[in-house]
Amino acid sequence: MSEHVVDLQLAVERIKKVLEDGLHAPALAIFQELTLGDQAEAFNRLSEEEQAVLLPLLDVSATADLFDRLTDSETLEAAESLSLEKLADVLEEMQPDEAADLLGDLTPEQASLALEEMEDPEDVLPLLGFPDETAGGRMTTEYIAMRRHTRVDQALEFLRQVSPDHEVPYYIFVVDREKRLVGVLGLRELVISPKDARMEDIMDTEVVHVASGVDQEEVANLMGRHDLSAIPVVDASNHLIGVITHDDILDVLSEEATEDIYRLASVAGTDLEPDSPVRQHVRGRLPWLFLNTLTALFAAWVISNYEAIIAQVAALAVFQSVVAGMGGNASSQTVAVIVRSLALGKTDPSKAMAVLWQELKVGVLQGLAVGTLVALGVWLWRGNPYLGIVVGGALLANLIVAGLAGALIPLALKGIGQDPALSSSVLVTAVTDSLGFLIFLSLAAYFLPHLF
Amino acid sequence: MSEHVVDLQLAVERIKKVLEDGLHAPALAIFQELTLGDQAEAFNRLSEEEQAVLLPLLDVSATADLFDRLTDSETLEAAESLSLEKLADVLEEMQPDEAADLLGDLTPEQASLALEEMEDPEDVLPLLGFPDETAGGRMTTEYIAMRRHTRVDQALEFLRQVSPDHEVPYYIFVVDREKRLVGVLGLRELVISPKDARMEDIMDTEVVHVASGVDQEEVANLMGRHDLSAIPVVDASNHLIGVITHDDILDVLSEEATEDIYRLASVAGTDLEPDSPVRQHVRGRLPWLFLNTLTALFAAWVISNYEAIIAQVAALAVFQSVVAGMGGNASSQTVAVIVRSLALGKTDPSKAMAVLWQELKVGVLQGLAVGTLVALGVWLWRGNPYLGIVVGGALLANLIVAGLAGALIPLALKGIGQDPALSSSVLVTAVTDSLGFLIFLSLAAYFLPHLF
Repeated sequence: MSEHVVDLQLAVERIKKVLEDGLHAPALAIFQELTLGDQAEAFNRLSEEEQAVLLPLLDVSATADLFDRLTDSETLEAAESLSLEKLADVLEEMQPDEAADLLGDLTPEQASLALEEMEDPEDVLPLLGFPDETAGGRMTTEYIAMRRHTRVDQALEFLRQVSPDHEVPYYIFVVDREKRLVGVLGLRELVISPKDARMEDIMDTEVVHVASGVDQEEVANLMGRHDLSAIPVVDASNHLIGVITHDDILDVLSEEATEDIYRLASVAGTDLEPDSPVRQHVRGRLPWLFLNTLTALFAAWVISNYEAIIAQVAALAVFQSVVAGMGGNASSQTVAVIVRSLALGKTDPSKAMAVLWQELKVGVLQGLAVGTLVALGVWLWRGNPYLGIVVGGALLANLIVAGLAGALIPLALKGIGQDPALSSSVLVTAVTDSLGFLIFLSLAAYFLPHLF
Repeated sequence: MSEHVVDLQLAVERIKKVLEDGLHAPALAIFQELTLGDQAEAFNRLSEEEQAVLLPLLDVSATADLFDRLTDSETLEAAESLSLEKLADVLEEMQPDEAADLLGDLTPEQASLALEEMEDPEDVLPLLGFPDETAGGRMTTEYIAMRRHTRVDQALEFLRQVSPDHEVPYYIFVVDREKRLVGVLGLRELVISPKDARMEDIMDTEVVHVASGVDQEEVANLMGRHDLSAIPVVDASNHLIGVITHDDILDVLSEEATEDIYRLASVAGTDLEPDSPVRQHVRGRLPWLFLNTLTALFAAWVISNYEAIIAQVAALAVFQSVVAGMGGNASSQTVAVIVRSLALGKTDPSKAMAVLWQELKVGVLQGLAVGTLVALGVWLWRGNPYLGIVVGGALLANLIVAGLAGALIPLALKGIGQDPALSSSVLVTAVTDSLGFLIFLSLAAYFLPHLF
């Protein structure tokens, strides 16, 4: 644990203590001694009541800094307690991309009232039209652009004049007369170049850029691949319309990973945390449990068709769950590998045949290994080799089904433009459960005379 | 899809085509037209045979650039085909943190031979002692540090002299006589400050930093929270020993997310991709399936104790899997939320009581909802209200077990210093399966006279 993090927890405890004693000024003082990043973290560790006391104590600028660093849903929750006037002032001071996100999360009436109240909404307005999870939704309009013919000394003079808390200080984008992106240079090149050099002499003309509609996950992959700390966003005619910075991409990667982990476990809503309200847990989880109930009852119906033979050989009830459960385990392995590789751009639906062939081989090998082991175990335990053959054979078949379904379903979902993480687990489990029971009990029916 | 990505795929296809025709020089030419980031991606999209043809065509510097951008395991694979002399030259040109990672992945004999062959191993040697997944293992020794009394014009002159492809050009760290970290400033502050100002006049003395032993995931959380593009690493006496940059942190976030997703699905080895060799799939997956086999057979043994009553009421075999399966689904929801929140530092084992209390409430609510629905469904389907009560009651109980076990097991693993993602799924499923069967079949035994 770094020294730094310990300090933060101490500060939070001191704030809680003085708030409990009704001392507002000391609480504010401790809070404002923290760095901006720690302020956001500390704010999150306070209870809702403590937050409600602290927030009104912050001035407009401090509130804007805080909102810039909270997640979107945390910002929305805090913003709803502000008066319209203060909200408009805070929006004015926030980073344009974060302000646009907040405006998009407010109700349409609140948003238009707040926009009317703002004195200078120009930075924010162009950002409002882009969906949240695209390059356009992630970009900021606060960046530094220079013209081709600008000299180094002019550029340095300009930098001295612009606001020092600028979000993108390390790249300078070079545009032509129509604001089309033609080059980029790092601040370092500017510093080490002769005073009278022009932007076009020192800029790099190979600029990695993205269109505004590109998905944020693809932007993150691109920035990671090129080790970029910022990437320019252009419209269809290559006009520079914004910039995405490394801190936004950290958020994107973290959010996308949470989303995939939650969706693979059938949890809706990436905002869910252990201490979220019970109603939020139930809203994010119960609908998926209901869907699982339906598929589980369908699997139960499959079994019910074999009740007559289970009544004759109750041992079948002992092993049917092994077959279905192992299929579920094997398929969730495949789903995880496929979904993650799709997210990282390491595979795509066009490779479906090769992936299925690979999974078939893996399924056969693992099926033979697990099936043989269990067949021998069942034979030893129950003293009936045929029961072992039925359980082991069904395991082999179901592990092959698991590999194929675990690969095919997410690839197919991606192919039709759906998020493969969203419902793969439910669909694949439905397949491995139902087919697992079907395969096992049909095999049992075939070998029935030998199972007594 | 951005224009950029399409170009890459075209380039890959052209390289494949000319390599197929045996034309080496054109393949190299197309490859070298790509940006460094795209070269790594293109290299990955070639087959092993194509890689083996292309790699020897690259000179030392191009190979080093490529290795800097491949993942550690990809680099290792490619490095193993190089001669010792070329490998040493390439290591010399690589970024020190990446070179240290590669040396750590080679066999000890290969590594010491390569180090002996290197002319200038000073940059790399200090990095070799740190575990891969800590701040020390992620940091580079290539950073810019200045003394307190250095003037702005001296600093700018120094920047003009150092190598232009330096990894950390945007922060300047200020150290005292003993190399203890005392401040930081951005390149932008340097540019806009008077020529005769000294570092100590313009530096920020509140430097967010980490100790070398801090886990890489915590470093990523810290950089995200503070919107940092680089973070200094210090030893126990606050000496500056390295810097971690934003591109490393993108890799960390991506790797940690893959690791958690894979571990939650019981897949070992984060390098596994759909087109990995079959033996690598089996190595990463089969051991976990064997472990699952043991827990599944244990659950089967639980059922076997009730064979006598299943023989009397075969319908029990129809519904036992619904109870166990729904418990498994509910628990994987809880495990996902807890494991992810632990990874992001949003909860910790000290909050176990509050988390368990929350999960108890959620479990009761969801258990009542799902249990009632299924009880009514079973009553309607089978015409026996007692069977409905047994299934519904067992579901209620098992969903409470699922919530508690799904929270307790990852929190406990974290509490004893283990990775909560690593075995939570297996352990929790073992609990919900075995207890699910036990609860359901004991309830059935209690109501047995009414179930005929």
